[in-house]
Amino acid sequence: MPNPTAAMLVIGDEILSGRTRDSNLHYIACELTKHGITLAEARIVADDHQEIVAAVNSLRAKYDHLFTSGGIGPTHDDITADAIAAAFGVAISHRADAMALMAAHYERQNLPFNEARQRMARIPDGAALIDNPVSIAPGFTLGNVHVMAGVPKIFEAMLASVLPQLTGGPPLLSQNLRVLRGEGEIAGDFGALAAAFPDLSMGSYPFTQNGAYGTNLVIRGTDPGRVSTAMLRLTELFG
Amino acid sequence: MPNPTAAMLVIGDEILSGRTRDSNLHYIACELTKHGITLAEARIVADDHQEIVAAVNSLRAKYDHLFTSGGIGPTHDDITADAIAAAFGVAISHRADAMALMAAHYERQNLPFNEARQRMARIPDGAALIDNPVSIAPGFTLGNVHVMAGVPKIFEAMLASVLPQLTGGPPLLSQNLRVLRGEGEIAGDFGALAAAFPDLSMGSYPFTQNGAYGTNLVIRGTDPGRVSTAMLRLTELFG
Repeated sequence: MPNPTAAMLVIGDEILSGRTRDSNLHYIACELTKHGITLAEARIVADDHQEIVAAVNSLRAKYDHLFTSGGIGPTHDDITADAIAAAFGVAISHRADAMALMAAHYERQNLPFNEARQRMARIPDGAALIDNPVSIAPGFTLGNVHVMAGVPKIFEAMLASVLPQLTGGPPLLSQNLRVLRGEGEIAGDFGALAAAFPDLSMGSYPFTQNGAYGTNLVIRGTDPGRVSTAMLRLTELFG
Repeated sequence: MPNPTAAMLVIGDEILSGRTRDSNLHYIACELTKHGITLAEARIVADDHQEIVAAVNSLRAKYDHLFTSGGIGPTHDDITADAIAAAFGVAISHRADAMALMAAHYERQNLPFNEARQRMARIPDGAALIDNPVSIAPGFTLGNVHVMAGVPKIFEAMLASVLPQLTGGPPLLSQNLRVLRGEGEIAGDFGALAAAFPDLSMGSYPFTQNGAYGTNLVIRGTDPGRVSTAMLRLTELFG
């Protein structure tokens, strides 16, 4: 059975303008790979209601899971929760359990639980809350869509809450052979090897070192025996 | 007149598996912003012919420009040029000028210009070559699609060849106010200010510093006078 598939949707003007360098995408790529879920696609869209709705509906239909980051804070540019509700055609309102969690948190901090902060308790109908041990305001899961914060520390904590609940396949194994030859030199034999192992994925990634060209040859697959057999053949060819 | 729009398509299994951390997306975001082209969307897809074709056709129709990175090397997993040809419905073949450039390069390096390397001279009909001062094998522009290498040094050099040929609008200006208050505290007044300047884009980005919460308030726009006026008001509110 093939591994479950997922997409990631990063939401935020600041990534597309270059102001902020996204790190959540690389983080979730590594975590999903370890968990045996194949990250098949990622998108980055601006803080634009129609664009978020369209991307959510396209990606949640196509993959087993969709993860989003960004746009669930207290300010006017945080429009993700409303867009998710619109994408699913459900209502959104201040939810009692989220309000209670947050009221207690701000009381402990001696900060007013004002209208802006209460906005973060607006959750689409039918969603399950995602725990936020960092700053309390929760994410949520609606259907196969997991809505998380953009701040990396919070995103990572929310993902740690969600991931153990999702069924993964066998983790994707990866082995690497580093050769001090250019890609153009090894391409013929490497391509033939890849064709002989259609159940594995093989890629080549060039690098330069002290002015010389080298290539990292990578073999990926979920069957440890097959990966090892292919790796042995690769080492015979180029080792 | 609004600024021209663009999308970026990153192509490669290695980004989605987490093996490689993409840096081209952040790079092009900064460069396009400086050049007055709005990066409106980005996508990352795997080395999969149908996925590349679908993303290229969707994004080139929607935006003024589409930039791609990855998949134009000499190995079996480099399938971008064929996918672009398929997306446009044009033929692809070894092109004489690209073959000549590369033959001379490999002769100087005393390396065989073998079949794998010649693959990099396969260019869709009707495309214009993009100069590659780093490793010679060219990228290409077909219609409004600019096809570039994934290796960051080469991607950056190719972008430097392409960008001066594209008409940009006024550069997007950005001003920043750093306040030592949480987002939830400033959200009300900040949202009202954003509503009063609908021609500008305002965003807030939380940070923590020594355990305290702070917020970067950012105002973006192309009209220097408007950005300054809004910044003055912002400073009066929170400075």
